[in-house]
Amino acid sequence: MPQVTITRRLYFNAAHRVHNPALSDEENAATFGKCNNPNWHGHNYTLDVSVTGPVEERTGYVIDLGRLKGIVEREVIDKVDHRNFNLEVDFMHGVIPTTENIVVGMWRVLEPAIRPARLTRLVLWETPNNYVEYDGK
Amino acid sequence: MPQVTITRRLYFNAAHRVHNPALSDEENAATFGKCNNPNWHGHNYTLDVSVTGPVEERTGYVIDLGRLKGIVEREVIDKVDHRNFNLEVDFMHGVIPTTENIVVGMWRVLEPAIRPARLTRLVLWETPNNYVEYDGK
Amino acid sequence: MPQVTITRRLYFNAAHRVHNPALSDEENAATFGKCNNPNWHGHNYTLDVSVTGPVEERTGYVIDLGRLKGIVEREVIDKVDHRNFNLEVDFMHGVIPTTENIVVGMWRVLEPAIRPARLTRLVLWETPNNYVEYDGK
Amino acid sequence: MPQVTITRRLYFNAAHRVHNPALSDEENAATFGKCNNPNWHGHNYTLDVSVTGPVEERTGYVIDLGRLKGIVEREVIDKVDHRNFNLEVDFMHGVIPTTENIVVGMWRVLEPAIRPARLTRLVLWETPNNYVEYDGK
Amino acid sequence: MPQVTITRRLYFNAAHRVHNPALSDEENAATFGKCNNPNWHGHNYTLDVSVTGPVEERTGYVIDLGRLKGIVEREVIDKVDHRNFNLEVDFMHGVIPTTENIVVGMWRVLEPAIRPARLTRLVLWETPNNYVEYDGK
Amino acid sequence: MPQVTITRRLYFNAAHRVHNPALSDEENAATFGKCNNPNWHGHNYTLDVSVTGPVEERTGYVIDLGRLKGIVEREVIDKVDHRNFNLEVDFMHGVIPTTENIVVGMWRVLEPAIRPARLTRLVLWETPNNYVEYDGK
Repeated sequence: MPQVTITRRLYFNAAHRVHNPALSDEENAATFGKCNNPNWHGHNYTLDVSVTGPVEERTGYVIDLGRLKGIVEREVIDKVDHRNFNLEVDFMHGVIPTTENIVVGMWRVLEPAIRPARLTRLVLWETPNNYVEYDGK
Repeated sequence: MPQVTITRRLYFNAAHRVHNPALSDEENAATFGKCNNPNWHGHNYTLDVSVTGPVEERTGYVIDLGRLKGIVEREVIDKVDHRNFNLEVDFMHGVIPTTENIVVGMWRVLEPAIRPARLTRLVLWETPNNYVEYDGK
Repeated sequence: MPQVTITRRLYFNAAHRVHNPALSDEENAATFGKCNNPNWHGHNYTLDVSVTGPVEERTGYVIDLGRLKGIVEREVIDKVDHRNFNLEVDFMHGVIPTTENIVVGMWRVLEPAIRPARLTRLVLWETPNNYVEYDGK
Repeated sequence: MPQVTITRRLYFNAAHRVHNPALSDEENAATFGKCNNPNWHGHNYTLDVSVTGPVEERTGYVIDLGRLKGIVEREVIDKVDHRNFNLEVDFMHGVIPTTENIVVGMWRVLEPAIRPARLTRLVLWETPNNYVEYDGK
Repeated sequence: MPQVTITRRLYFNAAHRVHNPALSDEENAATFGKCNNPNWHGHNYTLDVSVTGPVEERTGYVIDLGRLKGIVEREVIDKVDHRNFNLEVDFMHGVIPTTENIVVGMWRVLEPAIRPARLTRLVLWETPNNYVEYDGK
Repeated sequence: MPQVTITRRLYFNAAHRVHNPALSDEENAATFGKCNNPNWHGHNYTLDVSVTGPVEERTGYVIDLGRLKGIVEREVIDKVDHRNFNLEVDFMHGVIPTTENIVVGMWRVLEPAIRPARLTRLVLWETPNNYVEYDGK
C-alpha cells in the first residue's frame, strides 16, 4: 500500500517583535538587533502542511485537500493572519515569536486537529531566504 | 563514499477529471466538487525526479542529467504532455487521476527504467499551492 | 495628483483545445500540433489585473483590492476555473481559445465591470514560459 | 544611441496599519477591515527600481548597479527595513501607509537622489499577489 | 483590431568578464570590481522576447510560439548558451558584455529575424535581482 | 525538546568547466558535451544551508541566522562568488567541479565551521531545473 505525502501551501502575514521579557532592554537589543524593534515589524509567511498516508481507493486521495485547507485555516491561519504574534495569538502565549517557536506552536495545534490523518511535516517561510521545518520530534 | 541526491525538474500540462466510475454521478459530484467537471479541466504540472548514489570519480556525476532527462521524457513526459490523464495515459488505466495516483504511477514506470541508478523521490506539483511526494514505500 | 497602477494577481485552471472548426482535421493538426489534441489538455493560468488612477485621499487607495478581487472573481474566475474554454465559457463563444483570444475576451468583460475605475492592463500567463498582455487597444 | 532600462530588485520587511486618523474607529474598521488591526500586521516587500538612459561607452553601463543599490539602501531601505511605516518613516509622515502611498513617497525621495540618472519606474510588491507601479506622473 | 503582446521566456547560461580593453588593469579593477575577475564568472540568464500585433483570425495567434522559439534559439540561444560572451559570441564583438550591451546586441539580431512580426521588447535577467529592458529605441 | 531545522538561503555566481584532466579532449567532449567548453560557462547558484537542533529557550533560536550567514559567507560564498571553480577555489582542488562535487566540498568546509551547531543538509541549485542535496553520509 503506497504511502504518499501530500502538501497544501497557505499564506498569511503578521507583525511580531523578537523579544525576551526576561532580559533587559540592552540584552534584547544586543541579542536580537533590528528584529527587536519595539515598534514591531512583519512578514509575509508561507506555510506548507504535509500529511502522509495510504491512497484511499474510493477517492484516490490521501486526504481531501479542501478539508485539509479548511482545518488549517480555522485552526491556524484565521488566528494569525493580519495579526500580532506577541499580542494576539493564543498558541504563542509565553514564548518568543521566532520562526522556530511559531512552527512548533502550529504543530501542537494542527497535529490533533488533522487526526486521524497523520501530519508529518510543517515548513514555514519567514522571508524568501529563510525557513524552518518541524516533524513533531 | 559520499551519497548525493541529484534532481531534475521537468514540466508538462494535461487535462483530467477526478471521477470514480464505481460511484454515481451524485456521489462523484459530492465527493470531488468542481474537480469532477465532466468537460475536464487541466493543469501545468512540475515533476522533480531524484536519484541518489555515490559520485562517480571519472565524471563527478551521480548520473548524467542529460541521460536522466531522456529517460523521463521517453517514459513519462511524452505520454502525458498535452494529454488527457483519464483517456490517453497507459500507466493510469483503471485508477482515478489524482495527483497521488499519478505520482505512484510514474514511480512504477520510472523506477525500473532508471536502474541501475536508484530513484529515491518523485515530487509532483499540480498547482503552485499543492504537491505530492513519493519514495516508493 | 500622482497616477498609480495597482495590480491584483489571481489564479485559475482550465482545459482547452486549440482548434479552428473552419479548418479540416488535417489543417488543424498541421497548424496547432499537440495543442489540437481532441481529448483536451489544460493549464494553470495566472492573471494580473491592473487599474490606474489617482490615490484617493480618504483611503490611500486607487481601488479597494478586495472589491477589485470580487469583481474579477465574479466576472471571470468563476466562469473559467476548473472549466473547459471551448465548451463552457460564454465570453469565448465563437473564437479559438488561444491565450491571445482569452485575454481580449476577459478585457471585454472586465473593462465595463470595473468602471468607473480604469482597467489599464491584463497579463495572462498560460505556462511559466509564455504570457500575453493586452491594454484595450 | 540606444536607451536601455536597468532594474535593481531589493527587499525589506515592515509593520503597518492601514488607518485614517480623520475617520472614526468604526469608519476605519468598515473601510480597511483586517488591515486596520490596531496591533499592526506586516509584510515582506519587494522593490524594483528602474533607471533609463543611454549605455555609457566606457563602462557598458546605464548606471553602476552597485552605486544604484547604495543610493536606494541609504535613502529608502535603511529607513523602512524592520520598521513601522506609521510610526518611524519620515517620508510617510501624514499619509496612510498603503502600498500606493508608499511607492509615491519612495519616488519623491529617490528621484532627486538618483539624478542625474533618470528614475523611470518603481514597482513595489506587498504580497506575492499584489503590487503597485509608479512612474512619477 | 486588438493589438496583443505575446512573450516567450527562454533560458541560457554563459561566462563573461566585464572588462574594457581600452582601460588599464587598475582602471578596470576600480571600475568593475569582482565582475572584472580575469578568470571569468557566469550567470543563468532569462530572456523574455515579446512580439506585438493583431490576433490572426485563422489561428487565434499573434505569432506561433513554436516558430518564435525556433527563431530565438537559432539566432541567439544557440550562439550564447554554455558560451563565453567575451570570446565566442559574434554579435558581441567589440563591446563590453554587460547586460545592457547584451540586450542591445540581441535586439539587433532578433528584430530582422522575427520580421514581418514586430519585436517590441526584450527583457534580460542576469541574476534574480537585476534585469534590463530594451524596446529598440 | 523539539528538534527544529532552520535553513538560510544564499546566492552566488561562478564560472566552471566540467572537465576531467585524466581523459583525452575527445573523451571529455564526448562525456561532458557543451559543459566541457574550454572557454568556460557559468551559473547563478542558490545554496540552502540547514542546521538542526533544539530551540534555545533564551532566544527562541536554533541558531542565530545572522551568525550562520556570516559563517557561510566567510567559509564558502566569499571563496566562490564571481570566481572560477576550476582555477580559484581551494576546496575544489583536484576534483571535477560538478554540482555533486561542489556540494560535498562545501559540506567538508561548513560542517566543522558551524559546530557545535549541527549541519544537517545542503541543497545546491545550479539552474532553475536541477539541484543536488547532501547530508554528510
